[in-house]
Amino acid sequence: MAIKYSDRMQGIKASEIRELLKLTVRPEVISFAGGLPAPEVFPVEEMKKVSLKVLEEKGQQALQYSPTEGFPPLREKIAQRMSRVGIEVTANNILITNGSQQGLDFSGKIFLNPDDAVIVESPSYLGAINAFKAYQCKFIEVPTDDNGMLMDELEEALKNNKNAKMIYVIPDFQNPSGRTWSLERRKKLVELANKYDLPIIEDNPYGELRFEGERIPAIKSMDTEGRVVFLGTFSKTFSPGLRIGWVCASDEILNKYILVKQGADLQSNSMSQRELDAFLEIYDLDEHIEKIKKLYRGRRNLMFNTMKEFFPPEVKHTYPEGGLFTWVVLPKHINARELLKKALERNVAFVPGGAFFPNGGNENTMRINYSNMPEERIVEGIKILGEVIKEALNEK
Amino acid sequence: MAIKYSDRMQGIKASEIRELLKLTVRPEVISFAGGLPAPEVFPVEEMKKVSLKVLEEKGQQALQYSPTEGFPPLREKIAQRMSRVGIEVTANNILITNGSQQGLDFSGKIFLNPDDAVIVESPSYLGAINAFKAYQCKFIEVPTDDNGMLMDELEEALKNNKNAKMIYVIPDFQNPSGRTWSLERRKKLVELANKYDLPIIEDNPYGELRFEGERIPAIKSMDTEGRVVFLGTFSKTFSPGLRIGWVCASDEILNKYILVKQGADLQSNSMSQRELDAFLEIYDLDEHIEKIKKLYRGRRNLMFNTMKEFFPPEVKHTYPEGGLFTWVVLPKHINARELLKKALERNVAFVPGGAFFPNGGNENTMRINYSNMPEERIVEGIKILGEVIKEALNEK
Repeated sequence: MAIKYSDRMQGIKASEIRELLKLTVRPEVISFAGGLPAPEVFPVEEMKKVSLKVLEEKGQQALQYSPTEGFPPLREKIAQRMSRVGIEVTANNILITNGSQQGLDFSGKIFLNPDDAVIVESPSYLGAINAFKAYQCKFIEVPTDDNGMLMDELEEALKNNKNAKMIYVIPDFQNPSGRTWSLERRKKLVELANKYDLPIIEDNPYGELRFEGERIPAIKSMDTEGRVVFLGTFSKTFSPGLRIGWVCASDEILNKYILVKQGADLQSNSMSQRELDAFLEIYDLDEHIEKIKKLYRGRRNLMFNTMKEFFPPEVKHTYPEGGLFTWVVLPKHINARELLKKALERNVAFVPGGAFFPNGGNENTMRINYSNMPEERIVEGIKILGEVIKEALNEK
Repeated sequence: MAIKYSDRMQGIKASEIRELLKLTVRPEVISFAGGLPAPEVFPVEEMKKVSLKVLEEKGQQALQYSPTEGFPPLREKIAQRMSRVGIEVTANNILITNGSQQGLDFSGKIFLNPDDAVIVESPSYLGAINAFKAYQCKFIEVPTDDNGMLMDELEEALKNNKNAKMIYVIPDFQNPSGRTWSLERRKKLVELANKYDLPIIEDNPYGELRFEGERIPAIKSMDTEGRVVFLGTFSKTFSPGLRIGWVCASDEILNKYILVKQGADLQSNSMSQRELDAFLEIYDLDEHIEKIKKLYRGRRNLMFNTMKEFFPPEVKHTYPEGGLFTWVVLPKHINARELLKKALERNVAFVPGGAFFPNGGNENTMRINYSNMPEERIVEGIKILGEVIKEALNEK
């Protein structure tokens, strides 16, 4: 048979990089490729306690169907935590999703017709690009600097692209660049979104992992017209394996996400929601996050020091104040996809940066993760990467 | 602001029935409305044991990201279980999803363009109709009898609707009708799908809950050309709260589901997959299913006996040999949506059957669940329902 797929499947292709990176699960590989948290700081002992507690006290409910919107006490606790970044909402403005990736898919479903355009930072998160592509959209990349998206360029893009339907940004410790938007840019973004009447998707998986300095208020906290959708997750602060993220939006918009969730998978995992809720009752998540931040801060510092020593001076990288990634820019003529092949021969992996530009180009960039590998492997891996880069430089 | 949603959102509306049924969570309501398993037979004690085991032995892995395809040992066990209904596949043909509802959403995404038509049984599963509607499709309803879809009518529909892109069926203890397809109809369906070159989505959440008689081979077991996609779930045999379903398909088609899963939510819950896998290692799922079947068989018999005694003779219903539902047909002039309002005043709930006909009509039908309510409430609820029906009959 010749199976006829929908037109949208033409945009959903297996990525060459993903195939290459499948090799990185071999234990001998030093991988800076994934966005994986450090497993050493997962709350395994605490999970034992809360699993038993949930099963003993509410076992039947934890195994039964539960509301599409999510477990009410957990929604309540999330709503309360949102006030830390200036967002004042109630549990009714929170929908629990299977990780924030599901919030991205739903955003595409809710806002995008074929040939509509999404305005994104250049570069932007690969997983979001893939999620939106399923809705047959175009991408308008707006240049960025260390303070976020360039607002003049954004306004130009808004003026010139009547098919723009949504603005997608990752303002805190951006994936892949590690950069954080300034307060001024955030305010200006809301102003422009108001002027051009577009929704903003604010994706914020890393904001709670700030190693130094003060947290900057969320873009949603500046939302005067209910047009900002905030996506959050416990993947980086608690556990990605439990798949608990959330959407925070105005009543009207959240209602659309709830309807879409109903059709997409009915509800998120009842048991995991109750476990997380019990964890938040019994333990101090902030204390737990402090442990994570201490570990990542040390790894980031170690990585930057090792890069300084072993990377050639032509190579530049960002200096994130939090999150999981740094962004490396190589001399123009070096292709990071080719570099990855060489690095994998020596058991080191990263993600070539070209993948983060939906319209292509920028093949001389790489995303490097510093959260997952233990210290000695960070040093070893960066040394090897330095050698591989030097070899590539010398070839030209 | 006037938020601009995608065109598809026009088809995704809050259902009036869902709003009504929100009332049924009050403990005083005797609800035959949901498709909820009986919580008394959830394996709560076993879950305590496997949760601890997983966290003790593989805690870090259970809380970490894991493959999009699913936990390999669980995929392996599912592949083995598929041979019971004549499906011979390997773990590579299995993708773990968040319940089989997610498999329905993905089926729409993979096969449907706007204005394509899905061929469905009349009536069909409401959740599937809602999932497919998000892809802006039409529905072609094919009449059914106690042996499944009428094959002459199906062939007529295939001949006359060039926009048909997919056939969706629930052949075992169908939701909502409780009916099961005969072997002959299954064979004929595959023959027609081959002839008209369409994929078949075989949704099978209830097949393992057969109370009497022999299980009939899956439609996928008769698939000679790799065009049948089988959707399974542990929601009715283990726990719906853990959201573990699966897609079983040919390599080519499964690869599309995996790509879509990647964009939709990256992966299913790592922890729950490992817990279920450990349960399948340590305990006997079949023994557990026997307990469930014994309970549901008793409740079905009690419900049918009570209906016989208290329903007026004009009211007909199906006699399912398994699953969770029976289908009630009232005299033509009785509107079950109106009846629901009267029943809710007396704290009894069901789902009006009209919702299961995507093109409308058939308002004189109702879906009644017999798995969830304890015995004394089944008797009480059916008595009340009998009275409400009699009152409606007398009004005319």
